Amino acid sequence: MPRYALKLEYDGTGFVGWQRQDNGISIQEVLENAAAKLTGGAPVASIVAGRTDAGVHAQGQVANIDLDRDLAPVTLREALNFHMKPRRVVVLEAALVAPDWNARFAAIGRAYRYRVLNRRARAALLADQVWHVQKPLDAAAMHQAAQGLVGRHDFTSFRAAACQARTPWRTVDRIVVTRDQDIIEMAIEARSFLHHMVRNIMGTLKLVGEGRWPPERVAEILAARDRSAAGPTAPSAGLALVAVTYPINPFSG
Amino acid sequence: MPRYALKLEYDGTGFVGWQRQDNGISIQEVLENAAAKLTGGAPVASIVAGRTDAGVHAQGQVANIDLDRDLAPVTLREALNFHMKPRRVVVLEAALVAPDWNARFAAIGRAYRYRVLNRRARAALLADQVWHVQKPLDAAAMHQAAQGLVGRHDFTSFRAAACQARTPWRTVDRIVVTRDQDIIEMAIEARSFLHHMVRNIMGTLKLVGEGRWPPERVAEILAARDRSAAGPTAPSAGLALVAVTYPINPFSG
Repeated sequence: MPRYALKLEYDGTGFVGWQRQDNGISIQEVLENAAAKLTGGAPVASIVAGRTDAGVHAQGQVANIDLDRDLAPVTLREALNFHMKPRRVVVLEAALVAPDWNARFAAIGRAYRYRVLNRRARAALLADQVWHVQKPLDAAAMHQAAQGLVGRHDFTSFRAAACQARTPWRTVDRIVVTRDQDIIEMAIEARSFLHHMVRNIMGTLKLVGEGRWPPERVAEILAARDRSAAGPTAPSAGLALVAVTYPINPFSG
Repeated sequence: MPRYALKLEYDGTGFVGWQRQDNGISIQEVLENAAAKLTGGAPVASIVAGRTDAGVHAQGQVANIDLDRDLAPVTLREALNFHMKPRRVVVLEAALVAPDWNARFAAIGRAYRYRVLNRRARAALLADQVWHVQKPLDAAAMHQAAQGLVGRHDFTSFRAAACQARTPWRTVDRIVVTRDQDIIEMAIEARSFLHHMVRNIMGTLKLVGEGRWPPERVAEILAARDRSAAGPTAPSAGLALVAVTYPINPFSG
């Protein structure tokens, strides 16, 4: 059974998230159902680098699937994109990988971005792609506050109650908050994240940006190891998984 | 009757265009119906700087409306945005203008952008916001070709048959074609444009980008003054009206 790595882009709007659920359509289901059409109907199981929540987008998600037949990677990409129409899910690249390669466990880095539309009027062109915040935000203060999260820490304060990770310790490699006109963007990179960690960080930074909390408070929240010390969870629409990195890029061949 | 200038952003997807038509919902209808709720039901007529076609977007469209009551511009903006929900049309700014000010005739410049998604996989995150072209395009050749259109010319070759302008002469001030990863963007500015002019230019430049036509051919097409000499009309989804300029910016007050 050949194993393939797939780089995926999707608009998470209207999906219940990556993972299959009874209450709606998932990206996993769209991908696996398309793949099953290539195997003559035999079910196909996928493993994914980051299980995104409902409404969260991706422009560089990575998954792996096994097929019961050999297909050229380019043929596989085209066939999956054909069968996933008209869903807003596409395979950007496909590559043959070793039979034991795992999109989740082989990953050594994940990059997310979070976008805030910071103006009075709600989003029209960027609807479902941003968190609309009307109160003016100080991006420089948000950036400064975020630097207190860089490094290896116990992120209990930014962890969802439902998080199933064995440990709350994570290493954040980089957080950059910038403003471009009405858009405030946070870029954040780590080997892995806790459930809701990026959205909980943004929900906290937003309070700093509004001037309600001083930037220094974020490091105090981290030290508190208490979810109730941090801000609320920011909405899913602003979040996108930008890239997943591996020791050897499976798509570079 | 106070007159107001309105700066609008909208996602043109699913609209029949700016102008009211019997066969679907227009942006004009959404705006005027919202405004009528502020006047107690009396109809409100709007004048717009650029009547965008079905599926064309705007992030800086300008219109003017008259109301039968005085409203602070900020109040007007908020009230219109409330009544236009959930349509993807918003007022970014509102300003009181002179009773004879006209969003269309006072305009001295219009800036459009056209975006092409140039990759194998169709658009997921940018669906309905780009023209998807699979064949690799040479943006530098497209830019070079476009320079032959800058200046005052008879644009008959790039004019829709249905165009109602009195003259085919227009002055293009600037065209810049750039690539950023998978996105090729054309920025184009003129005092005014003919019907379908931007899309016909892009449909022609795409053939240059594919290498089917040499860059020099675009100047020859212009000189031919013959619509059939140019390329096909590019799809509406890639087009957006970015900004309208006036001798005195009505929103600067």
